[in-house]
Amino acid sequence: MPIIAYQGEPGAFSEKAAHALFGKRTTTKPKPSFKEVFRFASGSGSHYGVIPIENSLFGSVHENYDLLLRHKLHIVGEVKLRIQLHLMALPGVSIRNVKAVYSHPQALGQCEPFLRRMNGVEVVAYYDTAGSAKMIREQKRSDAAAIASAQAAQVYGLRTLRRNVESNHHNYTRFLVLSKSRAQLAPNMKTSVVFAVRNIPGALFKALGSFALREINLLKIESRPLVGKPWQYLFYLDIEGSVRDPHIVAALKHLQELSTLVRVLGSYPVGKTIQT
Amino acid sequence: MPIIAYQGEPGAFSEKAAHALFGKRTTTKPKPSFKEVFRFASGSGSHYGVIPIENSLFGSVHENYDLLLRHKLHIVGEVKLRIQLHLMALPGVSIRNVKAVYSHPQALGQCEPFLRRMNGVEVVAYYDTAGSAKMIREQKRSDAAAIASAQAAQVYGLRTLRRNVESNHHNYTRFLVLSKSRAQLAPNMKTSVVFAVRNIPGALFKALGSFALREINLLKIESRPLVGKPWQYLFYLDIEGSVRDPHIVAALKHLQELSTLVRVLGSYPVGKTIQT
Repeated sequence: MPIIAYQGEPGAFSEKAAHALFGKRTTTKPKPSFKEVFRFASGSGSHYGVIPIENSLFGSVHENYDLLLRHKLHIVGEVKLRIQLHLMALPGVSIRNVKAVYSHPQALGQCEPFLRRMNGVEVVAYYDTAGSAKMIREQKRSDAAAIASAQAAQVYGLRTLRRNVESNHHNYTRFLVLSKSRAQLAPNMKTSVVFAVRNIPGALFKALGSFALREINLLKIESRPLVGKPWQYLFYLDIEGSVRDPHIVAALKHLQELSTLVRVLGSYPVGKTIQT
Repeated sequence: MPIIAYQGEPGAFSEKAAHALFGKRTTTKPKPSFKEVFRFASGSGSHYGVIPIENSLFGSVHENYDLLLRHKLHIVGEVKLRIQLHLMALPGVSIRNVKAVYSHPQALGQCEPFLRRMNGVEVVAYYDTAGSAKMIREQKRSDAAAIASAQAAQVYGLRTLRRNVESNHHNYTRFLVLSKSRAQLAPNMKTSVVFAVRNIPGALFKALGSFALREINLLKIESRPLVGKPWQYLFYLDIEGSVRDPHIVAALKHLQELSTLVRVLGSYPVGKTIQT
């Protein structure tokens, strides 16, 4: 039976993503950091990791892009979850009593206009949305609130003070599944690639040409600074198709001629969007 | 005489950037948020704003990319500053007494490995690096430390507990100058553009072609999710040259044919790097 690690506490959005991908009765394992999720998925046994990679409002989870590059895991699946965030506190606590709001930095970013209207409240970054709800329960904090999922409110017995405090309701997070082995071939696959181009004129244009000239569709591009080389960049691409398609094999060979680094992070089936 | 607004408190890196750009004796004006810096720079009088836009380790300051799009200001200059971050506390406080560390989320991100080694310490997001140093002084917090610049330690009379707690010493931040009017023509200029492509195959490749086919060098590309349209993206480009160059005018016209949105954010002289 597979075991799926995720960052956070029971009630986290990543746990929900794990259940959406592997079924409700799958064993999940909370971990304190993304790094530990990567480590668990790299270990022996039928171990997987589920990580958030991008949010439709706030952008990418950069730490996970960096970790993808530093580990030898394969992306084998994805799912997109609608994110609904609620402000919650111990029963009996009213919004006027709240001096501090705890949540994950990404969730705080998604609720910034709401938090700004809560004049003078201290905004505290916590390692996890559900973890902030758990902390408020465990430490009996009657001066604080958490921003987390409805499920977290239920798990930790908190009362919702304000529903849907996220700034925009087109709020989705894309999660990836990590594994030591490649995904099986399936219809409707996509491939994630990371590369760094040589410092030559038109380098990125030429690099994208290796896909465009073969009519391979680009789904996403993300640039990240190259650590230790200020103002040089790594590019993360998602393209349509699988590394077992001959024209993608050819495109990657072509890309290699133009690049100082090319790594395929995985080919995997295009994921569903879950509205909840 | 110009007045330069920046986000944060005296001792902030942005204030240092303002002095590097306008001279040490220029009047600077601290503001509580980036939004207020944009608002000040949009007002009447010789008003400018200085904002951080990207860090060589941690990536872009996404909020400022989004604000650039929502305001009609022009980028008229840039400068790159070496960032050195120190852990500081009230005199007499030792690192063993520190229960919480305050700083700006970007600075906290840059010091993550160090903070992880400070087992169990609470990591609190604060609106500004120098502001967190100021708060510790004003509230006489003997249980907390700030991560900020050497200048902030000096301004607020704090003692440095650990020097250079940033994870990588190739740590630079690029700052932009915002103005109501365009920059004067100068040698060695660059141009920042934002665009959204039509949803057609090879769209980004074709869009970059409008520059590459004219041998216009691409300096940077950044994608941001389009709010309200999950999994569609805006692209922010930096290219070599000025909007007064005829081949850039032609390239932008070409780009317009392929895009649903094109906006020039400004042409400005390529900035210096200041090591401090």
